[in-house]
Amino acid sequence: MKPASPAATYRILGVDTALRTTGYGVIEATGARLRALDAGVIRTSPKEPFSECLRRLSGGVRELVKVHAPDMVAIEGAFYCRNVRTSMVLGSARGAVIAVLAEMAIPMYEYAPRRVKQAVCGYGNASKQQVALLVAQILGISVANLGDDSTDALALAICHAHAFQARGGLAVPPPL
Amino acid sequence: MKPASPAATYRILGVDTALRTTGYGVIEATGARLRALDAGVIRTSPKEPFSECLRRLSGGVRELVKVHAPDMVAIEGAFYCRNVRTSMVLGSARGAVIAVLAEMAIPMYEYAPRRVKQAVCGYGNASKQQVALLVAQILGISVANLGDDSTDALALAICHAHAFQARGGLAVPPPL
Repeated sequence: MKPASPAATYRILGVDTALRTTGYGVIEATGARLRALDAGVIRTSPKEPFSECLRRLSGGVRELVKVHAPDMVAIEGAFYCRNVRTSMVLGSARGAVIAVLAEMAIPMYEYAPRRVKQAVCGYGNASKQQVALLVAQILGISVANLGDDSTDALALAICHAHAFQARGGLAVPPPL
Repeated sequence: MKPASPAATYRILGVDTALRTTGYGVIEATGARLRALDAGVIRTSPKEPFSECLRRLSGGVRELVKVHAPDMVAIEGAFYCRNVRTSMVLGSARGAVIAVLAEMAIPMYEYAPRRVKQAVCGYGNASKQQVALLVAQILGISVANLGDDSTDALALAICHAHAFQARGGLAVPPPL
């Protein structure tokens, strides 16, 4: 794992974790220039046993790390949850993802949805459509074929890139 | 992974998952005879980053599987939780454990605390001390040096052994 510096070229994997549809997006940053490398989703089926879904999720993330060799990961913070049951399920998905990333020694940073919207759109109440539009503009890509989960993951990666580059990295939260 | 049969000798790993102190217990069953092989805890420190705690937890469980080669795992069901925040943290710990067990293709079975107490003590409201006493008696071991987390994990393993042996395995829940 090479230490990333804001001036060098480095890669960020954004992960928007959920049990059923986990969005991911990989960007490469060279100074202030950001380039999209990959985006998509890891899907699991309600027909599969719960343990198999978590295995696919952690296996999918491990595969992404092997393919793209990200220097850092940005994940959505577990800040909003409706109820105890939903929290438990989302927590399980996050635990499977975080444990495999930690095992591969990739530094992780957590960002609240509001902060991601603020970083990408300039205000924390932006809609998913507005986030997608700005992600397309910032990265110079078409997002017509990407779902919200993937554009949200790219937005997470962009949010971390901005934090990493701004004010000598002072805006970067402590690693998870 | 050899398919376990109630008549053969097989091993069960019981895991009582939590972020800070995860109890484990390994028993070997030969017919109705149960023997304790190992018991202890995987501890994490609040001084460590969250991701490192999950890594230790999944790494610890992987190590236990390598050492003891259990045929099956019994884990405590995520049925009771006080609030959204606690659920998220417990969910993360469970996700890290379940994903690594699924990756190693160990079948997992979930039991509610009440059912474990019922199986070991004969009634679902037994205290932790009563559970420990019966675990000691059933396995013929001293539990004086084991904490509640470890005796609870041994109780989980005993509960699964009983379900596996009784009524042609009809009492075994579907794998997680």
